[in-house]
Amino acid sequence: MPQNALPRIGITLGDPAGIGPEVVAKALLDESIVGLAKFVVFGYPLVKWMELGGRVPSFVTHSHPPEKWDGHMAGVELVHSGGLPNVITGIPCRDGGEAGIRCVLAAIDAAKRGWINAIVTGPISKEAIGMAGYPWPGHTELLAEKFGASEVAMMFAGGPFRVILVTIHMSLAEAIHTISAERILRVCRFGSAAVRRWFDIPVPRLGVCGLNPHAGEAGRFGHEEQEIIQPAIEQAAQEGIAAFGPLAPDTAFLQATRGKFDLIVAMYHDQGLIPLKTVAFDEAVNVTLGLPTIRTSVDHGTAYDIAGRDAANPGSMKAAIRMAVEMVRRDRNATR
Amino acid sequence: MPQNALPRIGITLGDPAGIGPEVVAKALLDESIVGLAKFVVFGYPLVKWMELGGRVPSFVTHSHPPEKWDGHMAGVELVHSGGLPNVITGIPCRDGGEAGIRCVLAAIDAAKRGWINAIVTGPISKEAIGMAGYPWPGHTELLAEKFGASEVAMMFAGGPFRVILVTIHMSLAEAIHTISAERILRVCRFGSAAVRRWFDIPVPRLGVCGLNPHAGEAGRFGHEEQEIIQPAIEQAAQEGIAAFGPLAPDTAFLQATRGKFDLIVAMYHDQGLIPLKTVAFDEAVNVTLGLPTIRTSVDHGTAYDIAGRDAANPGSMKAAIRMAVEMVRRDRNATR
Repeated sequence: MPQNALPRIGITLGDPAGIGPEVVAKALLDESIVGLAKFVVFGYPLVKWMELGGRVPSFVTHSHPPEKWDGHMAGVELVHSGGLPNVITGIPCRDGGEAGIRCVLAAIDAAKRGWINAIVTGPISKEAIGMAGYPWPGHTELLAEKFGASEVAMMFAGGPFRVILVTIHMSLAEAIHTISAERILRVCRFGSAAVRRWFDIPVPRLGVCGLNPHAGEAGRFGHEEQEIIQPAIEQAAQEGIAAFGPLAPDTAFLQATRGKFDLIVAMYHDQGLIPLKTVAFDEAVNVTLGLPTIRTSVDHGTAYDIAGRDAANPGSMKAAIRMAVEMVRRDRNATR
Repeated sequence: MPQNALPRIGITLGDPAGIGPEVVAKALLDESIVGLAKFVVFGYPLVKWMELGGRVPSFVTHSHPPEKWDGHMAGVELVHSGGLPNVITGIPCRDGGEAGIRCVLAAIDAAKRGWINAIVTGPISKEAIGMAGYPWPGHTELLAEKFGASEVAMMFAGGPFRVILVTIHMSLAEAIHTISAERILRVCRFGSAAVRRWFDIPVPRLGVCGLNPHAGEAGRFGHEEQEIIQPAIEQAAQEGIAAFGPLAPDTAFLQATRGKFDLIVAMYHDQGLIPLKTVAFDEAVNVTLGLPTIRTSVDHGTAYDIAGRDAANPGSMKAAIRMAVEMVRRDRNATR
């Protein structure tokens, strides 16, 4: 990024029937946020969020993405990424799914053309996407396909720790059978490189969790630590990755809180997300690793049940925006 | 407990080669602790902790337990529960295991005779107990046997939540196969009754966790919620227990933090202990349910590696003592 230019942060509004537009509006009304970057909001003509609380961020509207942004001015530009969606606030529907996906596709296109440096995504609904006939279960798969990324991983950051998951959306029984030394090693490589590149830590210290209570207590409560996790850690260390473990899961996050690790490698979804959400729910951010662009996301869904009531907390959206700005500024691979 | 009498709290020093004596001494030097009760410390002639920091709690020594305590005076009485142990600080050995067990046996005897209202245990070492030839893997099994308790359960309390575990010390794979509707139901009954009796909450609200990510997301990530956990919750509700769930594990503890539940029922060790230790490590307390006496315990081990260096944090011991005092005062079944 040229030194004098501001980061250009793309934001997608998400499903118009959910809380996405509201949390984006609330975040961009925060003066500590709006001065950080040039914000390009990918949305639609229906902006119900303009009505909430009687205050709206000031923005310039484009019916098509302009080819060139003024990168030296902070501020918000809204790009219409499709026609007027026909939705009822709080109810998943075909048009809501369609509008949510169109925002993301427009943001991907803008990122590919170099118009924006990062994408921050508002929440979409699996159900509404399905109604609209799209095959992707969520943002991550859509982004991976459109960017041609062969391998992506989710990193979560919030409060005192960063977490990367070895397995994600599968049953706990399946997760136990899915972890392998090779898979753990790949996640260690990926996580170490990402923290190095985007958080400016030359040799990130990875704390690798065990799978079982007390990390198996020398084989008394399971053998995965000895047979799978320990060999992966040793191989990672041979490759110059500062990986430690297998850690007793119930104290690993406490150690991270105290600054001992830059990234925790968790074996399954809840091992990583229980402590993250318990400690840092309103400021937890998802970061997708493995894409050619920076992508962060809120850590919550469309929350249809509270949509349209001015009740949504923009904490996670603000955190996702701040994280994207920080990553653009620290990106070691960027031309400066 | 007679209204004017102070609670009589038994404390066992634990393994003399570990940090038990040190954390007990430090806790009893705290003026906010020592006035809470009559403390009866079950220990041994070797009290290295007297030397630490140059300060010791003032206490009366008995070579045998006296038959009658003055229950109206706060203060500390030390009972020798065996001869001089031959130990080297920081190293597990036969004599350390023996001394640790003798303290507990003496405390059990005193509780059975009604001399004390609660037992707070300092840490012992499985390894040292084994060297001394005792069969119990830890306090819980020893207490259950000596009190003739057919069923006991561990509850953990710390910071904003109480947690009870459906499975404890086994591999994660075994835990998945061990949970059953019957077992979950037993834990709900036990936990509800205990919170009602000892924490003075007439109808405790139990949050029952799912096993899988997002509580299985309607069967997409596992079926244990539908087949095992949901039926247990329904049966508990029919019995008048306020049990809710299955909760998505990654937000259950956040909800408890916000006051929605009085007790979280966790399916496996780390599901409960990761959030507890991350949020409240230095003040986490174990409570054993199912004994005829109150028993609380520190949430850490002998920590041989830091023993004898005045480096141990008495936070958990103080919390265990405070919890025991609170439980004695609130005990609904006590004669008043």
